[in-house]
Amino acid sequence: MTQVLPKKVLVVGLGLIGASFIRALKCRGVDCVFVGSTRSVQTLQNALDTQLIEEGSNDLSSVSASLGKSDVVLIATPTLSVPAALEKLRPAIERGVIVTDAASVKGSVLDAARHIFAEIPPNLILGHPIAGSEKSGLFAADENLYQGQGVILTPLESSDPGALSMVKWLWELTGATVSTMSVEQHDQVLAATSHLPHVLAYSLVNTLARNKEYREIFKHAAGGFRDFTRIAASDPSMWHDIVLANKTAVLKQMDDFSQGLSELRNAIERDDSDALKAIFSRAKKARDDFSLILADREKR
Amino acid sequence: MTQVLPKKVLVVGLGLIGASFIRALKCRGVDCVFVGSTRSVQTLQNALDTQLIEEGSNDLSSVSASLGKSDVVLIATPTLSVPAALEKLRPAIERGVIVTDAASVKGSVLDAARHIFAEIPPNLILGHPIAGSEKSGLFAADENLYQGQGVILTPLESSDPGALSMVKWLWELTGATVSTMSVEQHDQVLAATSHLPHVLAYSLVNTLARNKEYREIFKHAAGGFRDFTRIAASDPSMWHDIVLANKTAVLKQMDDFSQGLSELRNAIERDDSDALKAIFSRAKKARDDFSLILADREKR
Repeated sequence: MTQVLPKKVLVVGLGLIGASFIRALKCRGVDCVFVGSTRSVQTLQNALDTQLIEEGSNDLSSVSASLGKSDVVLIATPTLSVPAALEKLRPAIERGVIVTDAASVKGSVLDAARHIFAEIPPNLILGHPIAGSEKSGLFAADENLYQGQGVILTPLESSDPGALSMVKWLWELTGATVSTMSVEQHDQVLAATSHLPHVLAYSLVNTLARNKEYREIFKHAAGGFRDFTRIAASDPSMWHDIVLANKTAVLKQMDDFSQGLSELRNAIERDDSDALKAIFSRAKKARDDFSLILADREKR
Repeated sequence: MTQVLPKKVLVVGLGLIGASFIRALKCRGVDCVFVGSTRSVQTLQNALDTQLIEEGSNDLSSVSASLGKSDVVLIATPTLSVPAALEKLRPAIERGVIVTDAASVKGSVLDAARHIFAEIPPNLILGHPIAGSEKSGLFAADENLYQGQGVILTPLESSDPGALSMVKWLWELTGATVSTMSVEQHDQVLAATSHLPHVLAYSLVNTLARNKEYREIFKHAAGGFRDFTRIAASDPSMWHDIVLANKTAVLKQMDDFSQGLSELRNAIERDDSDALKAIFSRAKKARDDFSLILADREKR
């Protein structure tokens, strides 16, 4: 199937995710009019000044009114702000404009869409690029952020195949590999592989930072600590939204984790060498499996 | 003070730590006879074949008997094997040979030394290079493993200043920065910045790996998960020794962590936005502080 490029690509939210999406498409020669919408006057000015976008506005409703059927919208705001953007884009979506999003949680966005629309519009395709950085904001934008990374789309049975393939194609143009799964599966997989690790890293650093001497303690930390805690420097408001939006799955993962940690704690307390070696060895084997998956991914 | 190189440097245990120590000194032109002692016949052969060492033996007691006052010994075995090595080195230590170690826990080694010797010998200087890798073994040896990294020595009041400066000097020759602190402080700092993160990473991956679909789940994991779990690929028997040797401090850190995690869990459950933002922001600030410490360290 030959795709025809959209006339306009509107990106709502010009942070790391939205701005990197535009940069990735531009640097790969995608010739559309890129339009930005952001609530911040300063960010909009920066986006225009750096020629990230050709057009922009702080008023999403008015931009929405100007969109036609050959345009595509990516909502790249924090998770809990997606519903407000959908509300403002409602007339455009009802006119058939293809809209997708990049929120880290899909169930909460789908729930919000069910409140806004009588039926989920076939041209609304929810998605999530599994890429990010502890850096955030327009100036952290990276044209290679999505290169070789995964994007998960969560179409419904009622989704329009043409809309799905347009969204898939645009993400592939950024260098990403696109897969599809159900909304429920997405939210469970991400709770395990992303939301839980972030929660643990935040909690560890927060607990250590209660010690007044924490800077002195950190002075003696090495590479393991650096890598383990890197994600604790992620944007707090973004992660506030994610853990609340995916609350049920996140709490379930936290409870499973705490039970496992408690078993490990008891094994240490009673000097249970066999149990300790079994836990550490099973973890090492699974992590080595993950290294193979990563190596395989890089080969592609 | 001008240092005179030892005649022989004996390294007990030819894994990542011991072999990297020798490689680091050799590549920086340190001209001693390097002697290796290891229980494995194959490792000894590999060490001789690759010219890591000039002499070697599987029998530490006999090597110990051949050491003189101008020789230096580094015990680089797993933590719980250090006492057995000290026992075999006892005659040499009593003759005044300078001995140090590289175990990740210092309290348990000091306790063992108290059982072996009537008084802690002034020429026994305990230490710990804060460097490592999830890789292990002779063939993972890296001449730059210690470059720019920290080494903590934990001398006692009774320690011989000459022995201390010899050990300090050898580590500095590998490219490391040496600091000193008490045994107790070392074990608490390391429990917080190294032992706890390893325990959490092992526990997370072990818990996730209980799910039969874990390989499928890991396929969708990104860079955050990769970095967060990297240390779960570390050597299980090494970490078995460390958590048992530093049991009290590790359990204390695990309990503090679990209490913090439980507070975070409750904040998520009751949708407490203010508490979540406070926890995530405090963690981000502390992690940003750590980035500054790292940047400062790299400048040196």
